[in-house]
Amino acid sequence: MTVQLIKQTAEDADVTFAARVSTQGGEARFNEASDKDAGLINYLMRDRHGSPFEHTSMTFYIEAPIFVAREFFRHRVGWSYNEESGRYKELQPVFYIPGRDRKLVQVGKPGAYEFRTGTGAQYRTVQDNMSTLYEDSYYAYRGMLSEGIAREVARMVLPVGIYTSFYATCNARSLMHFLGLRTTDPESKFPSFPQREIEMVAEEMEKVFAGLMPVTYGAFQKNGRVAP
Amino acid sequence: MTVQLIKQTAEDADVTFAARVSTQGGEARFNEASDKDAGLINYLMRDRHGSPFEHTSMTFYIEAPIFVAREFFRHRVGWSYNEESGRYKELQPVFYIPGRDRKLVQVGKPGAYEFRTGTGAQYRTVQDNMSTLYEDSYYAYRGMLSEGIAREVARMVLPVGIYTSFYATCNARSLMHFLGLRTTDPESKFPSFPQREIEMVAEEMEKVFAGLMPVTYGAFQKNGRVAP
Amino acid sequence: MTVQLIKQTAEDADVTFAARVSTQGGEARFNEASDKDAGLINYLMRDRHGSPFEHTSMTFYIEAPIFVAREFFRHRVGWSYNEESGRYKELQPVFYIPGRDRKLVQVGKPGAYEFRTGTGAQYRTVQDNMSTLYEDSYYAYRGMLSEGIAREVARMVLPVGIYTSFYATCNARSLMHFLGLRTTDPESKFPSFPQREIEMVAEEMEKVFAGLMPVTYGAFQKNGRVAP
Amino acid sequence: MTVQLIKQTAEDADVTFAARVSTQGGEARFNEASDKDAGLINYLMRDRHGSPFEHTSMTFYIEAPIFVAREFFRHRVGWSYNEESGRYKELQPVFYIPGRDRKLVQVGKPGAYEFRTGTGAQYRTVQDNMSTLYEDSYYAYRGMLSEGIAREVARMVLPVGIYTSFYATCNARSLMHFLGLRTTDPESKFPSFPQREIEMVAEEMEKVFAGLMPVTYGAFQKNGRVAP
Repeated sequence: MTVQLIKQTAEDADVTFAARVSTQGGEARFNEASDKDAGLINYLMRDRHGSPFEHTSMTFYIEAPIFVAREFFRHRVGWSYNEESGRYKELQPVFYIPGRDRKLVQVGKPGAYEFRTGTGAQYRTVQDNMSTLYEDSYYAYRGMLSEGIAREVARMVLPVGIYTSFYATCNARSLMHFLGLRTTDPESKFPSFPQREIEMVAEEMEKVFAGLMPVTYGAFQKNGRVAP
Repeated sequence: MTVQLIKQTAEDADVTFAARVSTQGGEARFNEASDKDAGLINYLMRDRHGSPFEHTSMTFYIEAPIFVAREFFRHRVGWSYNEESGRYKELQPVFYIPGRDRKLVQVGKPGAYEFRTGTGAQYRTVQDNMSTLYEDSYYAYRGMLSEGIAREVARMVLPVGIYTSFYATCNARSLMHFLGLRTTDPESKFPSFPQREIEMVAEEMEKVFAGLMPVTYGAFQKNGRVAP
Repeated sequence: MTVQLIKQTAEDADVTFAARVSTQGGEARFNEASDKDAGLINYLMRDRHGSPFEHTSMTFYIEAPIFVAREFFRHRVGWSYNEESGRYKELQPVFYIPGRDRKLVQVGKPGAYEFRTGTGAQYRTVQDNMSTLYEDSYYAYRGMLSEGIAREVARMVLPVGIYTSFYATCNARSLMHFLGLRTTDPESKFPSFPQREIEMVAEEMEKVFAGLMPVTYGAFQKNGRVAP
Repeated sequence: MTVQLIKQTAEDADVTFAARVSTQGGEARFNEASDKDAGLINYLMRDRHGSPFEHTSMTFYIEAPIFVAREFFRHRVGWSYNEESGRYKELQPVFYIPGRDRKLVQVGKPGAYEFRTGTGAQYRTVQDNMSTLYEDSYYAYRGMLSEGIAREVARMVLPVGIYTSFYATCNARSLMHFLGLRTTDPESKFPSFPQREIEMVAEEMEKVFAGLMPVTYGAFQKNGRVAP
């Protein structure tokens, strides 16, 4: 999976200048970042004043399987998307097969699943079934295309394990909301049970975010990873 | 495909009472619907005063292939969704194969495609490739499940032609926006090129909408099917 | 202040049928509400699965001063508004003066204010200044109107204490978010410091909500009044 | 009134790279802007493909009267706000009085008002009434503050003509929607009747936008100023 930051305007000072307009009016924007900024950002996070975190923008380019994109695009507020289209272009034969470290076995009840490492045999079952089916599906896809069938029809046989690519633009608030739901972390006040594959994407985005806005990120961690 | 209206609070009078609060204050809500209502609704539609159309709610239950749901869920504003989860339940072997009347051949450029009826041979190619691949994919899916592989992993082989089910709640404004983009209609001021399968869903929703809010629907038609 | 429920489609069963489509697919909607429903709703609230709460709709008619409406309309997501317009109609001379029980004195720092009861003299100061200024402002407003000045210009002198009226439509999720921020309550996990006047509106809306969706409301209380 | 661009990441190339991911996948982002870009942007605007315009961000600092801010904040989708608070800070005595060129007289019906220049006497009426009332209101405000009344209470007497300040962040799509509704322009396909004062703010924002994204702006003009 690929996660690239394409462009951004997102730094900790964006949060504090926006917050200070409440208490100081417009003069606030001329202030330099100061020692008080970390305190202010922590206060905003803790008491859930979310709007100052929205005056930021990050655009990511992401390559991930369709089943990940499906979960991703459920985030509606503060997110913008443009995705590769199976109607407009011929899709490439790139498919996802879980790595050897992917836990394959799920135990427990919905909402509280636990995952355990599979056996060697289980891993081979996954690898064999996926390789074969992926190949067959792409063969059928190409076969229909070569008979003159429209791309939007032929693609119906392609599995959700095929890769897609998309741009996603968010702000710090919508990103923190996403991270809170799509990662597991011991610091989290609320438990989440994301599928491992979207968590892998989220972890890459989290690194980018932590680098761009370290004070905001620190406050997010300190306050239980609950988006303000 | 299945489209059922589950519940609603959506009638033409909802639009006019909300609009009249602007000009008359709260007394407006005690007025009976009158001859003036059609004129007011038409004016709101024409001059694109959209907010009065939002005080309505329609919840649909929909069964459609994943490739349709993927397009559907791109509508973010004024839409709420809950969908069957391949992580929480075993998916059923119900797949979409285009009917004999589905135009299979696409000509022209992106953004201005035209579709033409396929030959008998082309239709058979589609039917054969899809039947075989769908069956193989479900066989691989079930095979992995029987080896103890987690549902969320096994499902990666399932094609986007498999059916999913979901609830979608919208208001009259967000529904009209959807209809404007996901149907073709000679009355449309702006051309749209939806995939036929999502248009089939949209057409069913349009019938429901026309029945619930006939005056609003009439104004939508009259004004070029541009959502206000 | 006036808060009236105008119409709704909002009951606890709406939450559970939407949630169960994830785990059971479409059959879920035929189930009767059962003993398990309270458990499911509590689980959704606790683990912050918010989307099933969105398939509900409540429309309120509200009369409140402009300074309250200003705070109210900052809630953007899951809210629709139509308001009386000072451009389209002549505003009526109805103004807000705090009641004798309104705490008038504020101590402490921003973000952690405390309010204390004012003295009799302080209350009279408020009452006198407001009565006089409100009257003078309306006199100036009427005077300009009688000279042929447009309503949208004349209204510039009207104070934010004048009443306005509006319709507001929300769903259970957006309403809980509003209630969490615009009320104070010992059960709250996150402290809020709303202005008393918007809290008065919020308290009325909360009563309506508790009546319509008692199980959801109970889970909201039990889980620290944090919207899912 | 003050309109300042504080920061941005918004250029025409942002639109085309996002759009081309549909047809070319991820390679698109490495392309240089080309002669084809204007054609693509015009096509997206004309056929109302709005999402590629969302991968942009502009943050404005604005000083305007409360009655303008009230209209501004009705724009919910794709807009973020932080505003000076009358609860947290003492408001300054800066008020709006229409300039000599402001048309003061309104004729016609709601939805189709026309404005005409006032007489000298009318202009003096406005100026006198506003000056006096503004001064009186601020005197009452200061009087209550000096008696120890909380800012959030004392401010109730301040008129909607007093200035406030706020940050507003939007993207190119939400900005075009705003411009389409809050300006009048002979190129507009749909008539709008904004209050002149918010139009003055919108016109300044439009100049900034035209400078940052000239090709997008040209397509907006060419296609009737209808946001895609």
